Amino acid sequence: MRDHIHEQSVLEIRLLEISLGELSARLAVPLIGDGATRVSRVAQLTNADAKSLSFLGDARYRRHLAVTGAAAVILKEADAQSAKVPVLISDNPYLTFAKAARILYPQPPVIGGIHPSAIVDESARVDATAWIGPTAVLEAHVVVAARAFIGPGCILAEGVSVDEDCRLIARVTLCAGTRVGKRALIHPGAVIGREGFGFARDGERWIRIPQVGRTVLGDDVEIGANTSVDRGAIEDTVIGDGVKLDNHIQVGHNVTIGDNTAVVSNTGISGSTRIGRNCTIAGAVGIAGHLDIGDDVHFTGMAMVTRSFTEPGVYSSGIPAMPIADWRRNVVRFRHLDDLTRRVKQLEASIQTMSEAQGRGES
Amino acid sequence: MRDHIHEQSVLEIRLLEISLGELSARLAVPLIGDGATRVSRVAQLTNADAKSLSFLGDARYRRHLAVTGAAAVILKEADAQSAKVPVLISDNPYLTFAKAARILYPQPPVIGGIHPSAIVDESARVDATAWIGPTAVLEAHVVVAARAFIGPGCILAEGVSVDEDCRLIARVTLCAGTRVGKRALIHPGAVIGREGFGFARDGERWIRIPQVGRTVLGDDVEIGANTSVDRGAIEDTVIGDGVKLDNHIQVGHNVTIGDNTAVVSNTGISGSTRIGRNCTIAGAVGIAGHLDIGDDVHFTGMAMVTRSFTEPGVYSSGIPAMPIADWRRNVVRFRHLDDLTRRVKQLEASIQTMSEAQGRGES
Amino acid sequence: MRDHIHEQSVLEIRLLEISLGELSARLAVPLIGDGATRVSRVAQLTNADAKSLSFLGDARYRRHLAVTGAAAVILKEADAQSAKVPVLISDNPYLTFAKAARILYPQPPVIGGIHPSAIVDESARVDATAWIGPTAVLEAHVVVAARAFIGPGCILAEGVSVDEDCRLIARVTLCAGTRVGKRALIHPGAVIGREGFGFARDGERWIRIPQVGRTVLGDDVEIGANTSVDRGAIEDTVIGDGVKLDNHIQVGHNVTIGDNTAVVSNTGISGSTRIGRNCTIAGAVGIAGHLDIGDDVHFTGMAMVTRSFTEPGVYSSGIPAMPIADWRRNVVRFRHLDDLTRRVKQLEASIQTMSEAQGRGES
Repeated sequence: MRDHIHEQSVLEIRLLEISLGELSARLAVPLIGDGATRVSRVAQLTNADAKSLSFLGDARYRRHLAVTGAAAVILKEADAQSAKVPVLISDNPYLTFAKAARILYPQPPVIGGIHPSAIVDESARVDATAWIGPTAVLEAHVVVAARAFIGPGCILAEGVSVDEDCRLIARVTLCAGTRVGKRALIHPGAVIGREGFGFARDGERWIRIPQVGRTVLGDDVEIGANTSVDRGAIEDTVIGDGVKLDNHIQVGHNVTIGDNTAVVSNTGISGSTRIGRNCTIAGAVGIAGHLDIGDDVHFTGMAMVTRSFTEPGVYSSGIPAMPIADWRRNVVRFRHLDDLTRRVKQLEASIQTMSEAQGRGES
Repeated sequence: MRDHIHEQSVLEIRLLEISLGELSARLAVPLIGDGATRVSRVAQLTNADAKSLSFLGDARYRRHLAVTGAAAVILKEADAQSAKVPVLISDNPYLTFAKAARILYPQPPVIGGIHPSAIVDESARVDATAWIGPTAVLEAHVVVAARAFIGPGCILAEGVSVDEDCRLIARVTLCAGTRVGKRALIHPGAVIGREGFGFARDGERWIRIPQVGRTVLGDDVEIGANTSVDRGAIEDTVIGDGVKLDNHIQVGHNVTIGDNTAVVSNTGISGSTRIGRNCTIAGAVGIAGHLDIGDDVHFTGMAMVTRSFTEPGVYSSGIPAMPIADWRRNVVRFRHLDDLTRRVKQLEASIQTMSEAQGRGES
Repeated sequence: MRDHIHEQSVLEIRLLEISLGELSARLAVPLIGDGATRVSRVAQLTNADAKSLSFLGDARYRRHLAVTGAAAVILKEADAQSAKVPVLISDNPYLTFAKAARILYPQPPVIGGIHPSAIVDESARVDATAWIGPTAVLEAHVVVAARAFIGPGCILAEGVSVDEDCRLIARVTLCAGTRVGKRALIHPGAVIGREGFGFARDGERWIRIPQVGRTVLGDDVEIGANTSVDRGAIEDTVIGDGVKLDNHIQVGHNVTIGDNTAVVSNTGISGSTRIGRNCTIAGAVGIAGHLDIGDDVHFTGMAMVTRSFTEPGVYSSGIPAMPIADWRRNVVRFRHLDDLTRRVKQLEASIQTMSEAQGRGES
């Protein structure tokens, strides 16, 4: 199993070192300083050492440049003169840093094979370059494409297909019929394609409605730990290319999410809602069902979304926390806010009447 | 393993076809049109083909009747004349559709057996007609009744019992002592019966209190993906017959939920709260502990339930999302809502005084 | 496997009986009554039988003392004379009850060994007194210390270490590099140390940033079912000693939580936020990222935390549920709260003007 290390980056012993000259070339950004200097890890400015590459993304931290122990720093041209160490110049230091980190901590190549403890149905087709980890279960007609990594304890139910270069870290459940595009990254505890929450009421009882759609993930999708994406009731649930879902997210049946939309943890998206492209949905947002959310719509944390928002923009709701005594006083008043508004309206009318009376000299 | 297909409905190749005449008879609803017409799948009016059965539940979609490619449609008598295709007449088209879908997509029968990779304690009793899937673990004194389906990766801890016709899809964890009634459907990632969150404070430290109750599920219960139901501290946590829990729900220790109550995803129910029968609790609702919620109580999404509601009705809270600039302006004012109310009261008093002065001719 | 019962307490057959005399001595609390009386279980006052030990924590339930069937009751000295049965006297009956319950329901000792179905990498080091359960997977360089219990289906990825006396109930996933301190209790579905949600935007696409920190848990930590704690982006995510996390909690990358802080279910803590010691965070709270929460800060349920709170205190937010008609009326008004406040201000000015006019005798 030692050949199938999938998270080598966290090990303490690392040997990869790269020269700033090579980094400059591979990242296509200018270097100021000694190109022979070598780095082997990333670090924040304040805790970097002589083997660390760091970055300055936010001008508020510029003072750290004077004291950092980093071997080199990625920063904007305007900040270059503040640095005492070699620098890589970038218009977007954070993005360049991300790319540098991917060079310093490369994904180890997947080595093909099937662990002897995996249970693979004879009708499943597994590419010779894919890895099926210990205790994984692949049911009938599963297809796993080239260089896919299926970690320990994953369950791929009947008819699932996983495309090239996917990584299912561990203990991922793909329910029957789920389709996963290329280069997906799926974290432990994710449940993709379970039968959605569809019932018809029959007197007091609930009758389950068969859910015969699938869940279809595009390319470059990420699904967080313990996140669920239900399969469609009749048509499919569809997650677009480049969509990133954090942990503990619920995506109901027949939801569609447009390309490159990112959703933060604990958010719930109810059934049949359509979400556009390039949206960002912050943590613990609740989105009701059958809504239409346009492209470039952004919800802030804990927003309560009960109607469609088709125009690009940032939308918010919720009451930020305050000392409990203040909250109690205000919340009691909220229960009478309609009444309060009527009272103000009445006051305005009274004032108007009295003002007119004053104006007419009545007394 | 191919004999133990549990989610056959999502496969693309399906052979089951049924005549409208047979459907009419089995559903006990009148047919208008050719009883020999055969259907093999369900579809929405707008994407149905010549093998599809569809339905019209909501009069707003009646215009689709004119253009649907469906072989047949389930609808109310009043809509029958708008259809160009054979129709099945029902007072409740959605319910009839649900029943028809269950006929078209039958649950395949469970074929008894124990997969060789399953780990079954010698003291466990498994009915010969039940299926224990790959890598499932059954600890001591577990009982699995007739026709139960225990999917891959499920863990049934010591003393668990699972009654007839249950389906545990995959990777379900039933902690020690959990009792599951007949015909339960439990989705991947569900954790039933873990030791609840019970502590006593000892100085700054928390001392865990043994949780010696169980979790007991009635008949026809459904538990969603990654949902947790904690075991009771002293007495049991009890989930009534026909209760349906969606994904990512937290049910605390000693909660009781009455029959046929349905709870939508991401909701949390704190310890020792009692919830009545026939309630519906929408998504992301938070219910505090030690409350008493009556029968036929309904909470809308994201409601914050901090007191008991014993009367039937619909209860709501939360502020719907709005453009962030509006939200910022309003939320700042909320912090002073108590003060604002006092100011209005003061205004009312002033107006009263001034009005009386005007009335008395003082000036 | 029968030797590795980890949740014996829920079994119906139990033999452990203890005399009140021994309990009094072990708990170091005074006994009034017959020290030979034996108890074998805990119960609430209202359902206790002749083998039950109960307690009176809240004076509101004192009337139950007269009718309880308990063999003995733990209570405050002031309540002793109300009891008809032997009593154990404690200043903190709930804490003493917790300690008594731990005596009556002891954790069975872990018996060392590795189940034959477990997959243990040859480079892993497992103490001879630790137990590795069925289908557990231990990857390269994992270390499991003395008397640790690794339940069925657990996955310990590369480089994980689990210290003495930990209990991983079942199906726990510890991602690469995670460090777990002594006496941790981790429930099913927990995912510790997954790569956090870190991306840089590259045009419309998201580029994943390698997450090279770890998750480090102190001693006596508890992690609930289906809870996730992400690993750090560069530095570690750190959970202090004695921290208790309930179910369905999300802890983002680089969060730090101080000693003995307790967090209730469904709460989310965003990345890089620091939380102090001895805090209590109720259910479904949302805490934004990069905040600083001090020691002894308490948030009530569903609080929305968007700024730092460094002073000890209780902080709240949210609108409690009300009948839907009331809610609709009030929530419409909330959208105009800023406007309403301005109208009140205008009224105050008008009143002031008119009042001055009246005072000057203008009319």
